[in-house]
Amino acid sequence: MRPEIVLFGDSITEQSFRSGGWGAALADTYSRKADVKVRGYGGYNTRWALFLMQHLFPLDSKKPPAAATIFFGANDAAILGRTSERQHVPVEEYKENLRKIVLHMKKCSPTILIVLITPPPVDEDGRNKYARSLYGEDAREEPERMNEVTGVYAKKCIELAEEIGLRSINLWSKLQETEGWQKKFLSDGLHLTPEGNAVVHQEVVRVFREAWFSAEEMPYDFPHHSDIDEKNPEKAFQQRCA
Amino acid sequence: MRPEIVLFGDSITEQSFRSGGWGAALADTYSRKADVKVRGYGGYNTRWALFLMQHLFPLDSKKPPAAATIFFGANDAAILGRTSERQHVPVEEYKENLRKIVLHMKKCSPTILIVLITPPPVDEDGRNKYARSLYGEDAREEPERMNEVTGVYAKKCIELAEEIGLRSINLWSKLQETEGWQKKFLSDGLHLTPEGNAVVHQEVVRVFREAWFSAEEMPYDFPHHSDIDEKNPEKAFQQRCA
Repeated sequence: MRPEIVLFGDSITEQSFRSGGWGAALADTYSRKADVKVRGYGGYNTRWALFLMQHLFPLDSKKPPAAATIFFGANDAAILGRTSERQHVPVEEYKENLRKIVLHMKKCSPTILIVLITPPPVDEDGRNKYARSLYGEDAREEPERMNEVTGVYAKKCIELAEEIGLRSINLWSKLQETEGWQKKFLSDGLHLTPEGNAVVHQEVVRVFREAWFSAEEMPYDFPHHSDIDEKNPEKAFQQRCA
Repeated sequence: MRPEIVLFGDSITEQSFRSGGWGAALADTYSRKADVKVRGYGGYNTRWALFLMQHLFPLDSKKPPAAATIFFGANDAAILGRTSERQHVPVEEYKENLRKIVLHMKKCSPTILIVLITPPPVDEDGRNKYARSLYGEDAREEPERMNEVTGVYAKKCIELAEEIGLRSINLWSKLQETEGWQKKFLSDGLHLTPEGNAVVHQEVVRVFREAWFSAEEMPYDFPHHSDIDEKNPEKAFQQRCA
């Protein structure tokens, strides 16, 4: 009965049900109105995500999702020749992969509301500290992700959204508007703190609302308990379950 | 592809995706292994919950849930003649309603793993303070829920679980094992604090594990990113998606 919202992305989506996570908060915002399904794959780039499309979004689905967030790029933007180079995807391919993901989803669910989210900014100092906490002196000095490079991917993501008429969230820009974003919003230079998660949650709720997919305007799936007449409970259910 | 875990209950289930909530934590524990679906209805007792069964658990479902928690009783135990009396359900009827809920679920999904959870204890002082915060001097002095009475409902819930061979969590007893449970685990005398949520999460994970429904032993739904050969990514997906 309830519409479904799919969150498709990398680790920032996979971890979105940890304490303070944006996915859990979204599920709470749409409580009794829509179901939130997490499809987050830590470490994945858009090239690998493409292998999942026919499985996650089968074209013969009886109940395709009503809305989705597509949130990739943090791994695609890993830099060639550095520690995470196996995840690297060239920026033009990133954009075309995103396009394929979108087109597949639209084939699966023609009226789906899709919101593209850019990768968050990178705090290179935070990444280095994180690498040293893992590898000590062996950690390379050169960051495996750079904020400026990730910014190029973010730009491509927004460019695609504009080209094909999708809503989008420029998280890369948005987070950097706040002084001290590096530590306030990012826990290891890349993943989100509870404060960073809160921004993603607010932004997704805002964009969904602007697209007329607002929790406030959606009906509860069954009567509110105060609308149930305790002497005659079936009445409330007959009206709402007919 | 992933099995589904349904959380069926009242407000303590409905609110389980708030920050620190046990439902969100469970979704995180089963990340990439099972989907957690919230079916929590604030204010509902078991009598009203019965009206939902055929809608939430249709007998012709193609993909019925693999596991479920049933978590009612906090409202059934509201006391006659007091503020929340409209939610009251006699304790024998509570037990029979729970039985009907279980039997319907088993008809829908014959191999489903069902865990019954008793209502949490009631902190009467906390309830009174909460009532005064809402109604000031007009708040009645007599608590609308009493710990001892809720304990009788908890006992019936456990009795039913034993009669029909279900796993159960005696949350009423469990929480009271800790000194200062009244304020540590309950925010308004009835609903759970993050610490109370953490206990429910731990208990559900423990009981699921004991019933061989353990996240540790379930496969990831797709290859871990470190198993993907970047020169030949299709290989990992051919093996796992066949």
